[in-house]
Amino acid sequence: MLSEKEMPTQWYNILAEMPHQPLPALHPGTKQPMTAEDWYPLFAKELVHQELNTSDAWIDIPEEVYEKYKIYRPTPLVRAYNLEKALDTPAHIYFKNESVSPVGSHKLNSAIAQVYYNKMEGVTNLTTETGAGQWGTAMALATKMFGVELAVYMVKISYEQKPYRRSLMQTWGAQVIASPSMSTRAGRKIITEHPTYQGSLGTAISEAIELAMSTPNCKYTLGSVLNHVSLHQTIIGLEAEKQMEMAGEYPDVVIGCFGGGSNFSGISFPFLRHNFKGNATTRFVSAEPASCPKLTRGQFHYDFGDEAGYTPLIPMFTLGHDFAPAHIHAGGLRYHGAGMLVSQLLKDNFIEAMDIQQLESFEAGVLFAQTEGIMPAPESAHAIAAAVREAKLAKEEGKQKVILFNLSGHGFVDMSAYDQYLAGDLMNYSLAQEDIDKNVAKLDQLV
Amino acid sequence: MLSEKEMPTQWYNILAEMPHQPLPALHPGTKQPMTAEDWYPLFAKELVHQELNTSDAWIDIPEEVYEKYKIYRPTPLVRAYNLEKALDTPAHIYFKNESVSPVGSHKLNSAIAQVYYNKMEGVTNLTTETGAGQWGTAMALATKMFGVELAVYMVKISYEQKPYRRSLMQTWGAQVIASPSMSTRAGRKIITEHPTYQGSLGTAISEAIELAMSTPNCKYTLGSVLNHVSLHQTIIGLEAEKQMEMAGEYPDVVIGCFGGGSNFSGISFPFLRHNFKGNATTRFVSAEPASCPKLTRGQFHYDFGDEAGYTPLIPMFTLGHDFAPAHIHAGGLRYHGAGMLVSQLLKDNFIEAMDIQQLESFEAGVLFAQTEGIMPAPESAHAIAAAVREAKLAKEEGKQKVILFNLSGHGFVDMSAYDQYLAGDLMNYSLAQEDIDKNVAKLDQLV
Repeated sequence: MLSEKEMPTQWYNILAEMPHQPLPALHPGTKQPMTAEDWYPLFAKELVHQELNTSDAWIDIPEEVYEKYKIYRPTPLVRAYNLEKALDTPAHIYFKNESVSPVGSHKLNSAIAQVYYNKMEGVTNLTTETGAGQWGTAMALATKMFGVELAVYMVKISYEQKPYRRSLMQTWGAQVIASPSMSTRAGRKIITEHPTYQGSLGTAISEAIELAMSTPNCKYTLGSVLNHVSLHQTIIGLEAEKQMEMAGEYPDVVIGCFGGGSNFSGISFPFLRHNFKGNATTRFVSAEPASCPKLTRGQFHYDFGDEAGYTPLIPMFTLGHDFAPAHIHAGGLRYHGAGMLVSQLLKDNFIEAMDIQQLESFEAGVLFAQTEGIMPAPESAHAIAAAVREAKLAKEEGKQKVILFNLSGHGFVDMSAYDQYLAGDLMNYSLAQEDIDKNVAKLDQLV
Repeated sequence: MLSEKEMPTQWYNILAEMPHQPLPALHPGTKQPMTAEDWYPLFAKELVHQELNTSDAWIDIPEEVYEKYKIYRPTPLVRAYNLEKALDTPAHIYFKNESVSPVGSHKLNSAIAQVYYNKMEGVTNLTTETGAGQWGTAMALATKMFGVELAVYMVKISYEQKPYRRSLMQTWGAQVIASPSMSTRAGRKIITEHPTYQGSLGTAISEAIELAMSTPNCKYTLGSVLNHVSLHQTIIGLEAEKQMEMAGEYPDVVIGCFGGGSNFSGISFPFLRHNFKGNATTRFVSAEPASCPKLTRGQFHYDFGDEAGYTPLIPMFTLGHDFAPAHIHAGGLRYHGAGMLVSQLLKDNFIEAMDIQQLESFEAGVLFAQTEGIMPAPESAHAIAAAVREAKLAKEEGKQKVILFNLSGHGFVDMSAYDQYLAGDLMNYSLAQEDIDKNVAKLDQLV
């Protein structure tokens, strides 16, 4: 437990310290590097500056954001003694508990910051998309806090499977639309072509962007992938660093589950900065679902962030922007690409990627619930599964390794998934590499 | 925020300090006062001793229980600044946030203690019942912590309406049976007589007791009503007392929602002890649903705690043990009677009761979610509604009153209820006084 007074007052901007800068994002029309002006129509100016800031490693957290953080931060760092005992491992396992936020996940860290900067610039309406609903929920609360209107495009399969998340957003005052919808050109197009399409994050992003572009005084917000989102999430790792120090340990492995990169970046980047200086040999492991394996089996390529091609072209590990992932229960991890920071760091071997099958993730999630008492989100269960693998390895090798993972959220709103798992109704999904390659090969025509 | 070190090490046993002792519970067969020996078949011996302890005002919290408490305690005391602002009230509103426990409610405080004492006495199997699922969830986690088997009879309507709570219990390893069931004599009887009966806490208690009585090395546990449950819950008020002192204030009104009395007792009794000594003029308000108004409109009478009449006869405010409450969404408050401590204190005018209609409770719940960011359980929303009433009154009277209420749990697993409320599908329920009187009049034949 960190006291309120010890909460970090700055975010860590890894972009300013990476040994190799990522390639620039490209304008989808001109194929030229995106300038700040190119980004302005989409995002609040201050967020664009953060997105492009390559000079300041530390960015002050605005006082109003800091005050909102104090509602639930600092979050606890917990030694998972009972999990260690159950695994009979010599490893020390720690987890950062982001599930204690009022929305139940780490997503609020960036939602508060994004809404704040938009509000400061006079924006009255925001749009966003959400997969499983974690990001949309966080935005619903953050916009309510600052008195801004919000429209959320929610992936249709989640809209139907996760009515509780939809209700949460609505109770906090947001407008929630199932995507694909008839309210946008991008949505109408895909419904016309595929009437039974269950939606994807890529499509929902297209719809949210289109609505923002066509509404006065309205901007768009994104909950992962981009640099400024990772920046806000570093509060997780910065707190964890202080807390590990209080515990008298330093992690040998840092683990986060991986969708677009926001929680993995948040827990990892503050520790990773010591690796840049050669002061540490910590490993950083991103745990992604085997059914959506962009880091382990995708290709590094320029690609769109959305399905319709409204976003800039981003240099990323990707499965192709029109990739339709299997309907796994870790809805927040069903995204075709990885953020440019993480992609570059993977290319440069600063981080590793691990793919986890659905059943392994649920097995780890149930073990964690039964030993540590906290019901993890299906997304977070991937990080737990990776931690379990590392702990078992430590046992085999007889090493007293220190493992730190991020518990990005709780699973109270995802219990139907556990229900199906316990009933034996879930299965694993794997993709043929040639299908992935074929899908990514289509990208060559983009740039 | 209280530091871990400042967490109270004793529970407060109000039974030892009440100006008027409650009447004794009576043996259902002999109608004689229950002795410790009479209670032993049902409960662990140490819990029976706590139930009957009229001499020790302070009971040490066992070290193993204390260690488990530290997983989530002390819980935060929060000043609801934004709610105050929204109500434009001069009142200071504080709430104790019990929703941060891993099961999402205060119920774990007593579950841990009850399972611990049973485990110490060699019990290997426990049974219990649950209405909305909060108590069953807490018992599922507590039994998993101590390695004890658990069977939970869950009120059928909740079993069907709240599948997430059922999944939580199952994930933590408990066996969950919809009540009424065919697994007990009491269940078979009521199913035979009323094939479509949707269940009640009273019936579920009968079934859980019957299973415990007919299973070797098995005891029964109850999540409210009884003295030892209230005792364990005083950790809430004892922490709050220290925290209010840190805030430099003392409550003028203390509020808890009311089902059987566990969370109301927990927040109230530690403050109430100062009233006994004439040192304070604090008011204590229990907020019960208008559809289940035992304190405001029931009668003080000896009655059974369960529907089949397996329990001792308890001196309580009651609507009659066969009362079938409306299917409101605050499932945890749908119980026919009040615990004997609270009943005696109400008779002696130490506490007050307030009835809240369903729509008023949801309106208050949504206001709280939108201002303070936390989604309250429908049960807890009754306490919020009462706090809102008090705050509005303070505004009318121009008084700077200090209000403290207990946020007994979060509503993440109850979002379908909010969904129906927002859609305008919920309604209020009121009972005719003559129906209540008629139902209670039947009790005269009992004693």
